[in-house]
Amino acid sequence: MDAVFEFIPSGTVTSPKGFRAGATHAGIKKEKNLDLAVLASETPCDVAGVFTRNRVKAAPVVLSQQRLKGGKARGVVVNSGCANACTGEQGRADAEEMTALAAEIIGASPDQVMVASTGVIGHMLPMARLRAGIKQISLKREGGHEFARGIMTTDTVPKEAAVKVKAGKYTIGGAAKGAGMIHPDLATFLCFMTTDARVEPGFLQSALKQAADASFNMVSIDGDTSTNDTVLLLANGLAGGGVISSGTEQAEVFQQALNGLCIHLARAMARDGEGAATLIEIKVNGAPDLASARQVARTVASSTLVKTAVHGRDPNWGRIMAAAGRSGVEIVESKIDLSLGSICMMKAGRPQPFSHDEAVKRISQEEVTFILNLNLGKNSAVAWGCDLTEAYVTINSRYTT
Amino acid sequence: MDAVFEFIPSGTVTSPKGFRAGATHAGIKKEKNLDLAVLASETPCDVAGVFTRNRVKAAPVVLSQQRLKGGKARGVVVNSGCANACTGEQGRADAEEMTALAAEIIGASPDQVMVASTGVIGHMLPMARLRAGIKQISLKREGGHEFARGIMTTDTVPKEAAVKVKAGKYTIGGAAKGAGMIHPDLATFLCFMTTDARVEPGFLQSALKQAADASFNMVSIDGDTSTNDTVLLLANGLAGGGVISSGTEQAEVFQQALNGLCIHLARAMARDGEGAATLIEIKVNGAPDLASARQVARTVASSTLVKTAVHGRDPNWGRIMAAAGRSGVEIVESKIDLSLGSICMMKAGRPQPFSHDEAVKRISQEEVTFILNLNLGKNSAVAWGCDLTEAYVTINSRYTT
Repeated sequence: MDAVFEFIPSGTVTSPKGFRAGATHAGIKKEKNLDLAVLASETPCDVAGVFTRNRVKAAPVVLSQQRLKGGKARGVVVNSGCANACTGEQGRADAEEMTALAAEIIGASPDQVMVASTGVIGHMLPMARLRAGIKQISLKREGGHEFARGIMTTDTVPKEAAVKVKAGKYTIGGAAKGAGMIHPDLATFLCFMTTDARVEPGFLQSALKQAADASFNMVSIDGDTSTNDTVLLLANGLAGGGVISSGTEQAEVFQQALNGLCIHLARAMARDGEGAATLIEIKVNGAPDLASARQVARTVASSTLVKTAVHGRDPNWGRIMAAAGRSGVEIVESKIDLSLGSICMMKAGRPQPFSHDEAVKRISQEEVTFILNLNLGKNSAVAWGCDLTEAYVTINSRYTT
Repeated sequence: MDAVFEFIPSGTVTSPKGFRAGATHAGIKKEKNLDLAVLASETPCDVAGVFTRNRVKAAPVVLSQQRLKGGKARGVVVNSGCANACTGEQGRADAEEMTALAAEIIGASPDQVMVASTGVIGHMLPMARLRAGIKQISLKREGGHEFARGIMTTDTVPKEAAVKVKAGKYTIGGAAKGAGMIHPDLATFLCFMTTDARVEPGFLQSALKQAADASFNMVSIDGDTSTNDTVLLLANGLAGGGVISSGTEQAEVFQQALNGLCIHLARAMARDGEGAATLIEIKVNGAPDLASARQVARTVASSTLVKTAVHGRDPNWGRIMAAAGRSGVEIVESKIDLSLGSICMMKAGRPQPFSHDEAVKRISQEEVTFILNLNLGKNSAVAWGCDLTEAYVTINSRYTT
């Protein structure tokens, strides 16, 4: 199965043909980090997008959603340090100007540029700095790493990767930012992906939705999204080859590769949750349907008590059961099996004897997997989270207006 | 309005006539704290109850729910330190034995005793210790304080109060435990209330449900409950007077007094959330209906980012808007007014200038109130929460199996 695609060493969002990127420190953030980034394609791209479901949508989200409808895109401009959310009509005008500024250096028209912002809500963008800063950006084929760093906020490492599909001779690349306890609710989640495959636009959108549901949405609670969450996938077709359409074997391969890339980025986000030290993986098997499997997995992965138990290296499995029980899924306690890696803790709803020392050793590793079998059906899902540490609180108390 | 009842100084769960209580250290908890408590009425009581909606219900919850149906109660037995949840048939037998042991010292039959447990999930009750411990309990008229301390886990102070209704010459008392970041999800919530009023059983249950919805459920997320959450209200009628029935003026007064007591206990819980330093109050006005008002208030009060902002003394109001936006209620950003106490931060969806120093001063007080007007209707609700501190994480990492 995984032979259909492979990860490219040091792959980035500019690994696919015809994409360039760059970033600069425009001065939106106080720290001397990159805070303005541009991604561009040589030729117009079909574009798919998934956005926040928050009722309070940032100006750049509203604008990008409009431009997504039927339009082609030449690129994306992103700033960190200011969310441009709750900023009224001025915010809308600023988002439009951002795309016009980026369009100049891309050599495109403004309506071909998508836009995203992340940072503090309720502050106006420092447009003078953006106008000056954007001119310093030089778009380069090897600019992917710079782009990935330019979109970071409290992330400690850039998240980027690219996969090569052997059969189709095309590449898919991506850069993401997450952090914030990896709940998109709790910090803006942004992800920009590119491919040189030729993809039928309807399938491009459905493939992106499906991949996001199996990856990014499994490090979150449904509907719990920030004002700014944005996932975009640009396809320029420069790898040549036939158009990939829904229902074909090629579509299956593209979906697998896209899922693989998205899951990789999702796991990287979870691992880099604010203050986190441990990647928590929750596997749910035996669910009556896929939605139930996902709901239980997500609820457990986002439980504060599960997160603190893992941080305390305490195999306190009762907290997993309590979280599963409040997930809204009609689980049956007396049917459930629960294990920590290969250590069985509960069988058919009864506590099982296990070596506490072994369990502590297992829960002290960098990746911790709990497996919950509901024994109610044949559906499975995986969700990812991270431990909750004192450092998370410190970071979020100090991240200031 | 509030002249219909008044708080009794140092009131407890045994303030109403005919109730006695006591507690002991039976050795269920490692620490030398009280961990086993009994509450008793001289005469059989009508009883109302509200329980967890978690699909995984502890054995004592299942048993108490059964006994509630049509039965009368003479008392309640409660242990802390072990939840008796996920314990299968043995857990059920242990819960029944707990009621039999308590029935002996109360002088009642076991099926007249309700039971509740709180503590670690997945461990069997140390029944030998319970059997020995319960004999040390002496039931006293002034035993209310002891009872309130006997049900504590990570609470730092007991939560108890009693109100006197002048017109009806009756009293309602209560003791509660909460803590756990005050999300009933995140720690067991228990509350036991007593009254010497004579109350028609159907009204007793509906009054308890209504009071819980306006108080305890406003320091939680609907459906987000632990395996053990239990609220009981026992009415022995010993104050004399006519039966209080639904739809009467007396019922209105009883409801007001019960709401007042429950809101007092709910605020005490929020104030004593694990590691908390600040009581956060979220008032939502102008909602299209009561359910929407409550949903927005609860979502904001339970937002991790709002909690950490208050901890950091940062008037970062964007986090309030982001939380309101993901509440599921169809709010309209351009209509919303938001203020911190009397400091207006947003008007009709636009950021307003305010003194940052004044706002920091206001958010540094022991009680912080945000007021959100949705300007969509006439309904209001209040929710309570607490700040999220490094201490919360430490407490929950160390609270061990």
